[in-house]
Amino acid sequence: MNDLEITIPSLDQNAMALTGERLNHLAKPPGSLGVLEEIAVRLSGITGKVPPSVRNKAIIIMAGDHGIASEGVSSYPQSLTRLMVHTILRGGAAVNVLARQAGARTLVVDIGVKGRIEHPELLERKIREGTGNMLREPAMTEEEARRAVIAGCDIACAAIDQGIELIGTGEMGIGNTTASSAILSVLSGFPPELVVGRGTGCDDRQLQHKREIVRRVVQKHRPDPRNPLEVLAKVGGLEIAGLAGCILGAASRRVPVVIDGFISTAAALVASRFDARVKDYIFASHLSEETGHDIMLNMLGVRPVLHMRMRLGEGTGAALAFGLIDASIKILQEMDTLDEVTGRDSL
Amino acid sequence: MNDLEITIPSLDQNAMALTGERLNHLAKPPGSLGVLEEIAVRLSGITGKVPPSVRNKAIIIMAGDHGIASEGVSSYPQSLTRLMVHTILRGGAAVNVLARQAGARTLVVDIGVKGRIEHPELLERKIREGTGNMLREPAMTEEEARRAVIAGCDIACAAIDQGIELIGTGEMGIGNTTASSAILSVLSGFPPELVVGRGTGCDDRQLQHKREIVRRVVQKHRPDPRNPLEVLAKVGGLEIAGLAGCILGAASRRVPVVIDGFISTAAALVASRFDARVKDYIFASHLSEETGHDIMLNMLGVRPVLHMRMRLGEGTGAALAFGLIDASIKILQEMDTLDEVTGRDSL
Repeated sequence: MNDLEITIPSLDQNAMALTGERLNHLAKPPGSLGVLEEIAVRLSGITGKVPPSVRNKAIIIMAGDHGIASEGVSSYPQSLTRLMVHTILRGGAAVNVLARQAGARTLVVDIGVKGRIEHPELLERKIREGTGNMLREPAMTEEEARRAVIAGCDIACAAIDQGIELIGTGEMGIGNTTASSAILSVLSGFPPELVVGRGTGCDDRQLQHKREIVRRVVQKHRPDPRNPLEVLAKVGGLEIAGLAGCILGAASRRVPVVIDGFISTAAALVASRFDARVKDYIFASHLSEETGHDIMLNMLGVRPVLHMRMRLGEGTGAALAFGLIDASIKILQEMDTLDEVTGRDSL
Repeated sequence: MNDLEITIPSLDQNAMALTGERLNHLAKPPGSLGVLEEIAVRLSGITGKVPPSVRNKAIIIMAGDHGIASEGVSSYPQSLTRLMVHTILRGGAAVNVLARQAGARTLVVDIGVKGRIEHPELLERKIREGTGNMLREPAMTEEEARRAVIAGCDIACAAIDQGIELIGTGEMGIGNTTASSAILSVLSGFPPELVVGRGTGCDDRQLQHKREIVRRVVQKHRPDPRNPLEVLAKVGGLEIAGLAGCILGAASRRVPVVIDGFISTAAALVASRFDARVKDYIFASHLSEETGHDIMLNMLGVRPVLHMRMRLGEGTGAALAFGLIDASIKILQEMDTLDEVTGRDSL
């Protein structure tokens, strides 16, 4: 048990062994489906089922604003966060398109957007109206960070109670690559040059400026990297804290989580600092174009399957990867065994 | 026009520009969906349609045997080719599972399997009962190679006549990684160490043996790398020739082709030596675990989107990638524009 009082169970080794054995008897050279087989085995370990089941899927999209956006770190105005949340609720954003293709629901959470959003399907869990400008003050208090993490955990658990068996993480928040870079800089010890990228589309001059902002933010607050709540509070974001909670909540309920790109992976990295066992429940989706994403994934010990130079966020990469998760299970369920191949024919 | 008398048209630059423009007006930073956007643009160039359409899909699986299998280059007996063709026709192989998930048909072609296969859905185009043992003789005559290429072209065109709008390449043939490595060695000039891998599962000793076989095969025949028919005849395979024809045929009809792993990419490389314009019509699916696949893909100038350490063939990687092709089109069709995001809300 970690200090959030979220308990994460161990993987079911017996279920993993059974699935591994079944895979080795299928009509193919052992291991020849590579990561598809590894996914199937780990899904069994997570769910305790042979074969595992992930019929009902959801992308949980946490939205929050960032005070640091006023420092010119993004190509877009802070107000776009709210507009894009409306777009996602309306079903017209990229993540909606890809989630529909994957047969997944989208759950949209206002955990800290500036301004009121009214929509019957919005999950309203606003902790505060955007973070503080972390160049001048902490992004939030530790109590707010804790509440955001717990809110994320509760959202995931409520979705699971409604039958969701696979969760993808998504987010919307102008300024959140800056917060994610600051988190990565703190947790990795790497300088801004290695962990700050162009986000939604900084030019060279803006990139220099963004690096300088991250350097100053980290120097000002110097959060203890061993204290994830302090990291979130000083240089994080409400949606990042919420997603960390989501991931921890899913793991506590033995539900696999597919993480999206740079911001989602920052959240996963923070979650792993609350409890390292959460890594067992995480599947990486894509390798983002954003500088530093590869460092994050390596720190988490997960490998992305999609290399598509995407950098949109929202959960788009996670939704795309859902099809690969489904495929790994169908392989287990539908393929003939090698005995069937050789036996039936020789009769 | 190449010497096969297959004409490959140029991409429709106007359709590509229109799709690029449409993508730039969608509710996302320009280019932020990376390869997904590149796929959509090229699909428009290939098909001449905005948005493009690839509703009806097929994996074309060419099966053929290899005389070189008698030299102990594979972990499996040559007779497994026929058994696996039965399995694919029955719907129980990995490629069937993944094609079904993608909503794609599987078309199975006997272009050179040893022994008779009877099945109502088998496309019977047998050129000969497996290739010759290329350690002692050419794999086939140039006339046979030409007939296999033309058969592949005809199969693709017939499928297109029946409404197929997207083709994936697949194959089955014990011994065909050896032939593909020999082809790659000839076309790249690289030594066996760089282009021969473990296939279905060679151990270290077998790998050494396989490298030595490829070295001797290439030294014996020394085909002219500028003559793709000679390369196919001396060190190729019937299913590889057939797939090269498939790819050329699809391109001639403005239909996109998703190539699978090591063997399919060898076929694509050969196709590109018949006519370099074919490259415009090819989408890479996955980066295979097989040694040398990255070299092939670089030579073709295509980049794989899936990194899953698969090495099964059959068309499994191509089938998995079909979902990503679909996604690229749905993005174009279903996403809101940035004007809709900002305009609707400000009313």
